[in-house]
Amino acid sequence: MRNKKSESSIKKKKEIIIQTLQNFGLQIYDQLWNCEFPWTKMPSRSINNIFYDSNLRQYILGDKAVKRSATNIRHIRPLTQMIWTALFANELSTQKKTSTLRDVFYSAQAYEMSFKDQQESDNIITDLETVIGHSREDFNVFPEERSAIFGDLTIEYTLPGYEGRRLNLTSHPDGMMIGPALTNAEFADCKADKVIAIEKGGLFTRFVEERVHDKFKAILVHTAGQAPRATRDILRRLNQELELPVYIFTDGDPWGMHIAMVIISGSANAAHLRDLNTPDAKWSGVWASDIVEYKLPSDKLTELDIKRLHELRKDPRYRGKLWKKEIKTFLNIKKKAEQEAFSRYGLTYIVDEYLPTKLEAMEE
Amino acid sequence: MRNKKSESSIKKKKEIIIQTLQNFGLQIYDQLWNCEFPWTKMPSRSINNIFYDSNLRQYILGDKAVKRSATNIRHIRPLTQMIWTALFANELSTQKKTSTLRDVFYSAQAYEMSFKDQQESDNIITDLETVIGHSREDFNVFPEERSAIFGDLTIEYTLPGYEGRRLNLTSHPDGMMIGPALTNAEFADCKADKVIAIEKGGLFTRFVEERVHDKFKAILVHTAGQAPRATRDILRRLNQELELPVYIFTDGDPWGMHIAMVIISGSANAAHLRDLNTPDAKWSGVWASDIVEYKLPSDKLTELDIKRLHELRKDPRYRGKLWKKEIKTFLNIKKKAEQEAFSRYGLTYIVDEYLPTKLEAMEE
Repeated sequence: MRNKKSESSIKKKKEIIIQTLQNFGLQIYDQLWNCEFPWTKMPSRSINNIFYDSNLRQYILGDKAVKRSATNIRHIRPLTQMIWTALFANELSTQKKTSTLRDVFYSAQAYEMSFKDQQESDNIITDLETVIGHSREDFNVFPEERSAIFGDLTIEYTLPGYEGRRLNLTSHPDGMMIGPALTNAEFADCKADKVIAIEKGGLFTRFVEERVHDKFKAILVHTAGQAPRATRDILRRLNQELELPVYIFTDGDPWGMHIAMVIISGSANAAHLRDLNTPDAKWSGVWASDIVEYKLPSDKLTELDIKRLHELRKDPRYRGKLWKKEIKTFLNIKKKAEQEAFSRYGLTYIVDEYLPTKLEAMEE
Repeated sequence: MRNKKSESSIKKKKEIIIQTLQNFGLQIYDQLWNCEFPWTKMPSRSINNIFYDSNLRQYILGDKAVKRSATNIRHIRPLTQMIWTALFANELSTQKKTSTLRDVFYSAQAYEMSFKDQQESDNIITDLETVIGHSREDFNVFPEERSAIFGDLTIEYTLPGYEGRRLNLTSHPDGMMIGPALTNAEFADCKADKVIAIEKGGLFTRFVEERVHDKFKAILVHTAGQAPRATRDILRRLNQELELPVYIFTDGDPWGMHIAMVIISGSANAAHLRDLNTPDAKWSGVWASDIVEYKLPSDKLTELDIKRLHELRKDPRYRGKLWKKEIKTFLNIKKKAEQEAFSRYGLTYIVDEYLPTKLEAMEE
C-alpha cells in the first residue's frame, strides 16, 4: 500500500453522507420550528450554468441557484418528494441496504409518496445529489449495470454480514463484479503498480488469460463501454488513494475516445458532483495514429462518427495536444478500428507487442 | 454433493469437443486422400426444418440436410471458411484460450482467411456448431454478455494457471461473473438445495443482501434479462448434475415469461443444439395472477405486449396449463408488473413474504 489514507475512507465517507442527509432534515425542522415555510436551495443544473473548470479539469456548476419553497404552490410537490427521498436515502445508508432507481420509485408507494413515473423520481434523486453534493451511489442507490475488476488488490468489505472479510481480486478469473459490495469496500492491500482500464469484455478476458496483471503488475478494469459511475469512482480511488497511474484502452473511434474522456474529465450531466473523474488518467489507445502505424483492419468512419469528431473538437475537454492531434488524424484517415483488430496479428500480439510498447511510451 | 457425475464432466466434455473437431478434419483429409472433392453434410437450419419435440421439450432440427461440396463453386468459400473455423476452434480448445465472435472475425486475417464482415463469420460459427453438435462456448468462443451467480457452491477451475484452485461462490457478495473460467469449472461441493434464477440485477443484489442464499439454501443466478447461453448451460448443469430444482423469477409480462421459457425449453435459433435447456425448471413468478393477488403497482399492457401474448399462445412451448392460464389472465387484466413492484410493501417484503409463499407452492 502506498499510503494509509484509504484505511477507513469508506466508513468516513458514509458517516459524512449520513450527517449531510440528517443536516438537510434538521434544516427543514428548524425552518418549521421558526414558523418558516420550509425551503431549500441548490445550484441550478440548467445548461447555462454548466462551465468547464480547467483547474479541476471537469465540468462544474456556476453561481446560479434555484430555490424550492413551500410558499410556492408549484414547489410543494418536488420539495416534499425531495424530503422523502432524503429520508429514504438516510434509511438505506443507516441500515446499509442498497437499492436501485427503479426500486426507489416503487418504494415511494410504501410511504404513500407519489411519483407519476420513474422519470420524476430519477430527477428528484439528481436534485438530492445536487443538494448534498454526493452521488446517489454514495447513499446506496445503484444502477443495474456492472463492470468488472481483476488484479492483485485485496479489499475489505463493509457490507453487513461481510464486515472485515477480505478478498483478493485475483480470486475469480472472470473478473470481480463492481457492485455495491465492492464499491463500499476498503482497499486493504495492493501489490499492483498501475491500472489498465479496458473498454471491451473480450479483451479484458484476453488480458486475464495472458496474465497481464502478473506480467505488468496491473489491476485490470473492464469498463463495459461507457464506465458506470461506480467504476469511475473505483478508478479515481485507485489513482488517488493508492497513487496508481491509470491507462485507458478503448476502441479507436470517437466513441472510444469519449469513454476515456468521461473517466478523465467527467460529463456535463455530472457537473453537480465531484470525485467521479480521474484527471491524471491517460487515454493510451487505440489512437487514430495506431491505426496507421499498426496497419490495423479498419472500417470507414460513418457520417455520424465524423459529426461526433467535429463536436469533440469544440469540446473544452478536448483542448490537450494529444486529443487535438488524434481528432485530426481520425478526420484525415477517415478510418476507425476496434481493440480486437490486433487479433489479425494473432490473439496474443496485443499483449506481447502493442501493450508493452504503449505502456513504455506512456510512462515517459 | 448429490452425485459424482460432475467430477470430471468438464474435462471429458472438452476431450469430446477436441476429438469431434479433429474427426471433422480427418474426414476432410480422408476425402482428399481418396481423391474426392472435400464435402460436409449438416442438418438444415431453415425454418421448415425446425420442429418442437415434446419429449425433449425443446426445438430440434428435422431430417432435411444440406451438403457443402467443393465440386460446387458457390460452396468452396463457405466450406473453406468452416474448415478454417474448425482449425481455429481446435487451437483455442487445445491451448485452452478463449475468444469472442468478434475476435474470430479478426483472427481470420492472421491466417489470410477472408470474411467479408462479422455476420459472415458468425454464420460459419453456427454452421460449425451444427456440424459438431456443440455450442460455440464449448469450443471457447464466448459472447461479451456476463451474468452472475452467488451461493454455497464450490467450484474447481480448469483454466490454465488456475487448475485445481477452488472458490466458494459466496466469496464476493456482488455475485461471481459467469464467464469462460466459471463455465469451464467443475462443481466440487454444494451445500444448497435449490436454484433461484432472477431476471433483474437489483433484485439479485437484494436477495444477496437479505441472505436468501442462506435462509433458503439457494444458489442465486442473475440472468441479466434473456440468459446468455453460458448461464443457461450452468442452470442445466446445476439441475442435472447436482439434481437441484430451478425456480425462475422474472418480470410479470410476456417478455419475462419468455425469459423463463427459453431457460426451460430453449429457442428455435438453438434447435441445432442440445444441453442448453432445463426442461424441469419452473417459472415461479411474477405471474399475471400475482399482479391481481398482491395488488401490485402495474402498467397497462402495450399493443406490442398484447401482440406478443397472442404469439406465445400459438407457440408449442406454451401448451402447459400454467402458461395457458397466465397468458389468459394477462389478456384479461391487460396489466403487467415488474419484479421491483413488490417494493411498494417495503424493500424486504419480496423476501419475507412473497418468496417463501411461492417456493412452498412450487415444491408441492
